[in-house]
Amino acid sequence: MKAEIIAVGSELLTPDRLDTNSLFLTQELNKLGIEVSRKTIVGDNRADLRDAFAQSLERAEVVISSGGLGPTEDDITREVVADLLGRRLDLNPQVLAGIQERFRRIGRQMVEANARQAMVPEGAQVLENSRGTAPGLLLESNGRLVILLPGPPDELKALFAKQVQERLAKRAGGLRQFSRELRVTGLPESDLDQRIAPIYTKYSSVNTTILAAAGEIQIHLRAWSKDVRETEIILDEIVEQISVALAENVFSTRSTSLEEVVAEALNMNRATISTAESCTGGLLAERLTRIPGSSSYFLGGVVSYSNDLKTAWADVPAELIESRGAVSPEVATALAEGIRRRTGSTLGVGITGVAGPGGGTPEKPVGLVHIALADGGATRERGMFFPGDRERVRWSASQTALDMVRRYFLRATGKKPGPKV
Amino acid sequence: MKAEIIAVGSELLTPDRLDTNSLFLTQELNKLGIEVSRKTIVGDNRADLRDAFAQSLERAEVVISSGGLGPTEDDITREVVADLLGRRLDLNPQVLAGIQERFRRIGRQMVEANARQAMVPEGAQVLENSRGTAPGLLLESNGRLVILLPGPPDELKALFAKQVQERLAKRAGGLRQFSRELRVTGLPESDLDQRIAPIYTKYSSVNTTILAAAGEIQIHLRAWSKDVRETEIILDEIVEQISVALAENVFSTRSTSLEEVVAEALNMNRATISTAESCTGGLLAERLTRIPGSSSYFLGGVVSYSNDLKTAWADVPAELIESRGAVSPEVATALAEGIRRRTGSTLGVGITGVAGPGGGTPEKPVGLVHIALADGGATRERGMFFPGDRERVRWSASQTALDMVRRYFLRATGKKPGPKV
Repeated sequence: MKAEIIAVGSELLTPDRLDTNSLFLTQELNKLGIEVSRKTIVGDNRADLRDAFAQSLERAEVVISSGGLGPTEDDITREVVADLLGRRLDLNPQVLAGIQERFRRIGRQMVEANARQAMVPEGAQVLENSRGTAPGLLLESNGRLVILLPGPPDELKALFAKQVQERLAKRAGGLRQFSRELRVTGLPESDLDQRIAPIYTKYSSVNTTILAAAGEIQIHLRAWSKDVRETEIILDEIVEQISVALAENVFSTRSTSLEEVVAEALNMNRATISTAESCTGGLLAERLTRIPGSSSYFLGGVVSYSNDLKTAWADVPAELIESRGAVSPEVATALAEGIRRRTGSTLGVGITGVAGPGGGTPEKPVGLVHIALADGGATRERGMFFPGDRERVRWSASQTALDMVRRYFLRATGKKPGPKV
Repeated sequence: MKAEIIAVGSELLTPDRLDTNSLFLTQELNKLGIEVSRKTIVGDNRADLRDAFAQSLERAEVVISSGGLGPTEDDITREVVADLLGRRLDLNPQVLAGIQERFRRIGRQMVEANARQAMVPEGAQVLENSRGTAPGLLLESNGRLVILLPGPPDELKALFAKQVQERLAKRAGGLRQFSRELRVTGLPESDLDQRIAPIYTKYSSVNTTILAAAGEIQIHLRAWSKDVRETEIILDEIVEQISVALAENVFSTRSTSLEEVVAEALNMNRATISTAESCTGGLLAERLTRIPGSSSYFLGGVVSYSNDLKTAWADVPAELIESRGAVSPEVATALAEGIRRRTGSTLGVGITGVAGPGGGTPEKPVGLVHIALADGGATRERGMFFPGDRERVRWSASQTALDMVRRYFLRATGKKPGPKV
């Protein structure tokens, strides 16, 4: 079964805005076994909009639009579709009462314009919108389904989950999409592909996509099937095989971020952490504290940009900075050990490097970063060279630091490499 | 003059990928006075692709595609368009030599598949690609222009700038787009609109878009004209009037971020800054150090999550935390004053609050944040309540902190409100 998505709104044809609703819709449609075969983005223009709906209806069994259901003159999706399908538009008293009620609750008078939103094409099903005034509409025509959804993402998502999903599931028949995701650090994309291609190419029924970003690779597995059990077994089998092939480089099979995985490891081991950052400027602390409840493991961190503060806050000896340079394995180590001692945390992380664009030298070029992890025993230190601009160097450094903490717990707990599936 | 954009690639019809090339293309086309009237996203499917090009060519004078020019079997844009326009595909020896040369330079053998990229439709102009092997192609047919560009953003951008822009400019005639942007903090969107609507509604030839995000509003002004001088004068006039109406709430008329504006103010005043953060977890330090050369004004910062570290790192008296609570105007003030004293910086910023989702109480709910700015004289403190989730609360708090620094320098330097245009 095929669907097309039409995003409506002149603002989506400017350089400022992108249609993002279609990502959510694609994900949900895919889960129901419905493939998205085309996306069209049109402005608030009657002829263009009519043309887009007419053509999509020629090609696809399901056409879903977002936007153009608001109260203003620009919002014409409802009228255009009614007209195209030869349906009369009638004022629906129930919908109108719902809109008036909504205004009463927030203590405001309904403006005349909002009555437009209560106009319903003949034979259309009204899809209640719990988050806004514009209801969605569902129409059937010549065996095709047309679903009009409001543009605001929170309204569209809630409405889809409550009103559209089940209706589509019935129609889509038994075919559904099943998926798995693995997230990996510490391997270049080409190495990763070389290791796992022999696995995924064996399964012709499963679609494999590899997405690489700075310091992280995601592997998406997707299969379309009517057979829940068989498909789940096959996907688990592939995840298992990839996990063995990539071993401890896999950090998640549950779509969790690296900082979430690190937070879990810290909590599980009742460990605490502190940070002493230079070139990352607080990014590592910021990522560690993105997670709700981070105060259970994060004690504190310093961003010691100046050399004096490296000494004052993390006891890095001034002579060491003088003799080895601020960007050196020795200073990274001293930062990690110093901050750990100062805060009394289980682990201490130190980062120092050249984020660029300025400040590089032939010996210490832009992109060189030293990262150290102290636990009171022998401090681990890694010198890395990250390509890219300032933002990418900083991100990659924070990613490597988090990954060092993750691997520390893998070793410390003697856990078998690779996450449990 | 109207253009349509076709993004080609099955990966763009999955939940993982969005076509972002069209934002760049729209911006560049708009500058040349060409409006984008539709965007279509299709997979690597011969029938779909042919249909998309055929329909776009019926409607628009310029059709630009991205993607599908690579060396693999999936890359069919070149063949589909040649076939649709009835053009023979010939191997172009010059293009082939270029591709071979490219491979030689990186020390690799050209694979047979890459020869596909040297196939050129009869009568097409080859657009040299300085960043990759796939050249762009430009075809004219019945007075319409078809431009095929490679998908990788860096290749597409470089190729457009060097090979497409001028050709399109000639064709587009004199009409061009002119634009201005103002960025604003400290006003709700409705207040802002009430103040500036009387201004922008007077100018019917200028299109005004207001985009609101957490702690920041952008005002985009766009006009299409053949008359450079007149249009520039009108736009400057509107910017001037809006700047007066919104006064010191405007922080940029040059598309600069708030942290860039703060960095400039610090540098210009030869001032330094330090930070003591709690709920923002290092985000303020991270934003202050995003700017290249930030070591000239940023000395350092602490993320004192635990109460002990607030005392140890910023001299916040333990009794004060005990009596007023960690989230209080007094502790924010002590953090700002303490970190300033410790680092010897010109300014010190202290932030403490409840980012959520847990930790809120009836007196101190999630979203409550206290922010203080110390300069050695009377410390300024603001208690704010930010709506939204953890991420939004943290971002809004960092935004307000940066804005307090910006406004401090406006007052300190006695600068006339509003930036220079």
